[in-house]
Amino acid sequence: MSGRLAVIGLGPGDDAYLTAEARAEIAGAEMFYGYAPYLARLALRGDQTAHASDNRAELSRAEAALTAAAAGARVAVVSGGDPGVFAMAAAVCEAIDHGPAAWREVEIAVVPGITAMLAAAARVGAPLGHDFCALSLSDNLKPWDLVCRRLRAAADTGMVVALYNPASRARPWQLAQALRTLAASLAPDTPVIFARAVGRPDETVTVTTLAAAPEEPADMATCVIVGGPLTQRIERPGRRPLVYSARAVPEARQ
Amino acid sequence: MSGRLAVIGLGPGDDAYLTAEARAEIAGAEMFYGYAPYLARLALRGDQTAHASDNRAELSRAEAALTAAAAGARVAVVSGGDPGVFAMAAAVCEAIDHGPAAWREVEIAVVPGITAMLAAAARVGAPLGHDFCALSLSDNLKPWDLVCRRLRAAADTGMVVALYNPASRARPWQLAQALRTLAASLAPDTPVIFARAVGRPDETVTVTTLAAAPEEPADMATCVIVGGPLTQRIERPGRRPLVYSARAVPEARQ
Repeated sequence: MSGRLAVIGLGPGDDAYLTAEARAEIAGAEMFYGYAPYLARLALRGDQTAHASDNRAELSRAEAALTAAAAGARVAVVSGGDPGVFAMAAAVCEAIDHGPAAWREVEIAVVPGITAMLAAAARVGAPLGHDFCALSLSDNLKPWDLVCRRLRAAADTGMVVALYNPASRARPWQLAQALRTLAASLAPDTPVIFARAVGRPDETVTVTTLAAAPEEPADMATCVIVGGPLTQRIERPGRRPLVYSARAVPEARQ
Repeated sequence: MSGRLAVIGLGPGDDAYLTAEARAEIAGAEMFYGYAPYLARLALRGDQTAHASDNRAELSRAEAALTAAAAGARVAVVSGGDPGVFAMAAAVCEAIDHGPAAWREVEIAVVPGITAMLAAAARVGAPLGHDFCALSLSDNLKPWDLVCRRLRAAADTGMVVALYNPASRARPWQLAQALRTLAASLAPDTPVIFARAVGRPDETVTVTTLAAAPEEPADMATCVIVGGPLTQRIERPGRRPLVYSARAVPEARQ
């Protein structure tokens, strides 16, 4: 007898970003799998159990959740942000793809959430208002040279770039090199946003420039948005500047 | 006296995608500006007024909303999906950038929502699980040649592509040409998803291939996701196939 596995996006930060659908899915599940800080955000009932695992144990967490669901349980795998963007939904699919046939009979529901770049962009205006790319800067699963080729491709064609996983203790130099790679094609005053822990009490959001960006601190809870040639900064009296990427490309900039 | 302008993302489809923050912002506003079908999704109270405008009147709608907010009103501009992705937040910023100084004193809050590509991706698994681009196929505001250069840049570097505004009555041929452009770099069996009206009663989601994709109907309510070299399709008995983009790049594919 096959159960059901919901991969639920909690959004970043607190419950303000939780959707009605995510709330209903959380109420309906009995076993919860996830990274401990995400599980800690849930107010589970006595009949619901939490199974915490390390942030890097994505595939083994997916396998444990699928095993429980294939045995008939109503299972939830929780992700911060959106589960489909550099998070658990791909790990669950990968586990199904390489797992036993019974896992293909489990009902799978992916419940979208507000992903970090949308929350970060909202804090400053509309930097993602023009065509953009979302890249993970982690080179744990892909060669660094490929990351740089994607960055060059985006900058050379005027796309805004949102960077996930910009830095960690094990990956201290990648962000500076990524910013240098983008700077080869973009103006030094291109607006850059560092948004850390959006929606949490320790949220910090900084608007800087591509030239000054290497000075900013970043970690795994930071989303960095690097504007394109159409990204503008609007100064405001007594308020953080707005940043937006113009919808229209002037003929002269083609 | 300056009021407040909230640019609120309602998510696609019905209220399942509405966040707690969006719900609170809707409750707190007194004047609502937006495209009529989005305003129709709100259950406004007697003390709240709706000001509908045409889908293409984005800049004049933003100006009307800013005029009301600068006069002291609590104003909401509503968008389907996320207001920062090819929607109203950039139009509001653009109006501020080119408008009277008083508009820079209005408190601006952008409230993120589930954008179409996240809802579309969730319906089939995790096609956006690897690096990706989000492009609007509309060439009303940018040259078509630039759209094609961005498509080639994405496909040549193995990024997944999410296409917004793929087709309309006035733009009937762009999607087929975009698919041909991508097909120059991608395998004919690359998975492609057409997701229309996700979350609405008339929702349709189709998983096809790049070779067969030109046969699929599309309109302004459709989001098209074209996979990359790492995008896999998993067949399942009695269920829609899953589609996901693998997180890891095998060395051989560099």
